[in-house]
Amino acid sequence: MGEIGKNITAYRYGDEIMVVDGGLAFPKAHQMGVDLIVPRIDYLLEHADKIRGWILTHGHEDHIGGLPYILPRLPRVPVYGAALTLGLVREKLSEFGLKDGEIDLREVQMGDVVKLGTHFSAEFIRMTHSIPDNAGYILTTPVGQVLHTGDFKLDEHPSDGLTSDLARIEQAGKEGVLLLISDSTNAERPGRTASERDIAENLEEVIKNCRGRVFLTTFASQVHRIQNLLNIAHRQGRRVVMEGRSMLKYAQVAQATGHMQAPEPFLTSDDVGELQDQQLLFVCTGSQGQPMAVLGRLAFGNHAKIALRRGDTVILSSNPIPGNEDAVNLIINRLYELGVDVIYPPAYRVHASGHGSQEELATVLNLARPKYFLPWHGEPRHQINHAKLAQTLPRPPKRTLIAKNGDIVTLGQDEFRVSGTVPAGGVYVDGLGVGDVGDDVLLDRVNMSQEGILIMNAVLHPTPHVEVVTRGFVRPNRELDHQIRRVALESIEQGLREKKRLEDVRDDMYGAVRRFVRKATGRNPVLIPMIVD
Amino acid sequence: MGEIGKNITAYRYGDEIMVVDGGLAFPKAHQMGVDLIVPRIDYLLEHADKIRGWILTHGHEDHIGGLPYILPRLPRVPVYGAALTLGLVREKLSEFGLKDGEIDLREVQMGDVVKLGTHFSAEFIRMTHSIPDNAGYILTTPVGQVLHTGDFKLDEHPSDGLTSDLARIEQAGKEGVLLLISDSTNAERPGRTASERDIAENLEEVIKNCRGRVFLTTFASQVHRIQNLLNIAHRQGRRVVMEGRSMLKYAQVAQATGHMQAPEPFLTSDDVGELQDQQLLFVCTGSQGQPMAVLGRLAFGNHAKIALRRGDTVILSSNPIPGNEDAVNLIINRLYELGVDVIYPPAYRVHASGHGSQEELATVLNLARPKYFLPWHGEPRHQINHAKLAQTLPRPPKRTLIAKNGDIVTLGQDEFRVSGTVPAGGVYVDGLGVGDVGDDVLLDRVNMSQEGILIMNAVLHPTPHVEVVTRGFVRPNRELDHQIRRVALESIEQGLREKKRLEDVRDDMYGAVRRFVRKATGRNPVLIPMIVD
Repeated sequence: MGEIGKNITAYRYGDEIMVVDGGLAFPKAHQMGVDLIVPRIDYLLEHADKIRGWILTHGHEDHIGGLPYILPRLPRVPVYGAALTLGLVREKLSEFGLKDGEIDLREVQMGDVVKLGTHFSAEFIRMTHSIPDNAGYILTTPVGQVLHTGDFKLDEHPSDGLTSDLARIEQAGKEGVLLLISDSTNAERPGRTASERDIAENLEEVIKNCRGRVFLTTFASQVHRIQNLLNIAHRQGRRVVMEGRSMLKYAQVAQATGHMQAPEPFLTSDDVGELQDQQLLFVCTGSQGQPMAVLGRLAFGNHAKIALRRGDTVILSSNPIPGNEDAVNLIINRLYELGVDVIYPPAYRVHASGHGSQEELATVLNLARPKYFLPWHGEPRHQINHAKLAQTLPRPPKRTLIAKNGDIVTLGQDEFRVSGTVPAGGVYVDGLGVGDVGDDVLLDRVNMSQEGILIMNAVLHPTPHVEVVTRGFVRPNRELDHQIRRVALESIEQGLREKKRLEDVRDDMYGAVRRFVRKATGRNPVLIPMIVD
Repeated sequence: MGEIGKNITAYRYGDEIMVVDGGLAFPKAHQMGVDLIVPRIDYLLEHADKIRGWILTHGHEDHIGGLPYILPRLPRVPVYGAALTLGLVREKLSEFGLKDGEIDLREVQMGDVVKLGTHFSAEFIRMTHSIPDNAGYILTTPVGQVLHTGDFKLDEHPSDGLTSDLARIEQAGKEGVLLLISDSTNAERPGRTASERDIAENLEEVIKNCRGRVFLTTFASQVHRIQNLLNIAHRQGRRVVMEGRSMLKYAQVAQATGHMQAPEPFLTSDDVGELQDQQLLFVCTGSQGQPMAVLGRLAFGNHAKIALRRGDTVILSSNPIPGNEDAVNLIINRLYELGVDVIYPPAYRVHASGHGSQEELATVLNLARPKYFLPWHGEPRHQINHAKLAQTLPRPPKRTLIAKNGDIVTLGQDEFRVSGTVPAGGVYVDGLGVGDVGDDVLLDRVNMSQEGILIMNAVLHPTPHVEVVTRGFVRPNRELDHQIRRVALESIEQGLREKKRLEDVRDDMYGAVRRFVRKATGRNPVLIPMIVD
């Protein structure tokens, strides 16, 4: 709620809890050095004995990426999901050294109904998205039906031909939907989101006109698009080279679960020797500008085996996720400088969002006719525009809530309100640490990044002297160093003459140096005063 | 060249140099803590005696913001510019404590020809842009005519009615333009950039429908737009409150030079007491998400005098500059949470770029018919797309160069090539320091921001012991501290036993702690080993 990332939702009735998804979020710019963020689960830990089961909507990181941090801390309960979703979860759990049986994964088909405890049953309903085997669900509860769309767009032409189950949504609407929880990501975009087929057509047109090698990057989880690409490559006589660890991983899982069919085996960059440039299509990681991913290494000339050259075409079949704009822009500029042709949106329509725009959101609202409405999967701007959109429809919901992370929403036949909160927010994962970096640590990082650090090491015996070390402050500068040492020393000598306590001597030195540095340089480095007696 | 920011261009013929503009650039994310960046002027310092004069195209920071750092270091020569441009330069110089006579500012009218030394004469030609009094110039040189567009769009409806002097460009084209230097900012955008009149019409429509107070933010230098707003407010019975230091500064200079006419005096937030909500229009700084600017303080509830409330409308008549997307998004979300109506592009067309799109760029290329072409004011992606655009036209240039900062371009009647380089790049301004923060210092900042810092202070007498201090590493953690101290101490004791030199003891401690920390935490904090003998 209120963000796009680290999705997790718990439903409770009486003494039973069921949970949906367990995602991760990527850090924002001010969360410096953090690798990723997983949701706090204090509430689930406290009520662990009540958890009856778990359902997973789809295999994206913001829905399953937190599971290795969450599931091992809770009792073993059934975890339901579709084949591709579970395939990706298995891969993830094994990376974390969790053995197969430790988590009770249970595969479902779309349309299956699973019972979670005595109060809940969830029916998986197919919704199209940028990854196959994507589900929403209808939750039957003692107070009524909840329809949760999951992430979705209404793609009428997904690569697997399996469209969203609107008929089931309409039926639920007729039976009565007490609450609709729906994807708000693109609630500010008018119209409809383009179909994967449109994107495939545009990609085919672009690739048809390429005379040299083609390098394409997209999200590794974009199985629909990559399937379409495999077909395009086959039709145009190009062999596909998969480049990048996650690209290979997703392709492997998707092939194993039957969601990807390669007309010809993939090549590696080692066995392309015989082929002409126009017989090659490289599918690469790095769509978000990561310097160490394949596209990043190609752009910066750091790839061990491949060097881009004039005549190559690079297609970015992706948009930068907010926060990655600068990194992607840098890569694009590098590619231009290398003299390759660079193809990317919006000049070329080679990417579409996985989330529905206003008309699609309206379709679901119109079919479901919910009594209550909870705009979900969006920042406040998206949630509120989704709520406004609902009010423009023929049968607007009776009540809409804009909820925040941690809100307890109480739902009854005639009740829909925020009735309290539970601890929420993120746990930072940094290196091997989970939760040992907090906002206090991040604040130090931000301060050091802006102003640097200045360490004063004062030694009192035999005669007082001060050593000054800085990092990220200013270029080595003898005169300034000398002045800082002098200011620190004068402060210490005065304190010793006045027989102050060592702590006070240290605080005085801190204050004197802070004032001096601010005046002399206009800056406020993080100061570390140390005194050795 | 190759960037948008810190514009400066020098022309040399024989022993004479003339210079155009002297701008600044804003730091990118990895240039942490840097306030602003000004161009290196090594070449001008080395050849200071040859400089004959300076011309200024317009009053934006990326064209004049570096002057207080540049002009005082060079001989006093005439600096030519239009009234508004010089008004803003004067304001800037006085902020830096430079007295009026120290810089030889000379006001020109559009169409004026100024002589710079014996070889150059420059004719100022009016070009529309997002600030009035904006100029390109035709430079007559011993080898031929150079037409430099300056920043421009072809706005047929600027607020002052003064359109671009296309007739003069056409005439120059007929006489013969040896080299065209043209604005590449929007070379990737098809069509034409919207006129300020379109934006004013859309703003008027939005404001007409507001029942409460209206707060609008835009760039303070957007004099055309603010003039249109003053007229709109007057027609709709709203008084204008100017909020924010730079908003007031630009309005004052623009009024003094006759580029802004306020139908009614501006109010301050202190004297609005009598007026109804629907009689107020606040024009605020903060369009780039700066937390301390007016809109930032309003959004975060930190404004001393004004609190936003339901019924208010906030209009962002602006787009985030690349790099500011997150900051602006945060403000927009906060505004939604406050329950105010928030209006911003692209859902509302309340902002237009100041730079021409492809059709406008093509118009100038078609009229000027240059022999040689230098796409300028853009990153490589913009320069190269501008070059490609030129090739699609009926009379493409004979040769186009994609130049970089610092390139020496040699121009003759039959010559156009990069013939060398001069030192180029940026000088970082941080606090009171100019140039004392370099890339080495920034690298330390980046490293500390990612991993934090760990200081080991080893004292050898009477018995060796080690103190450990960290910032931005992990939450205080006794067990880890203890282990680090132990590892450091063991390393020291071994070194002392082996009678190693102190430097080697320190290096050993550094290495031992680095290996231990990496293994124990998966991280690489910046390590500072200190030894007190």
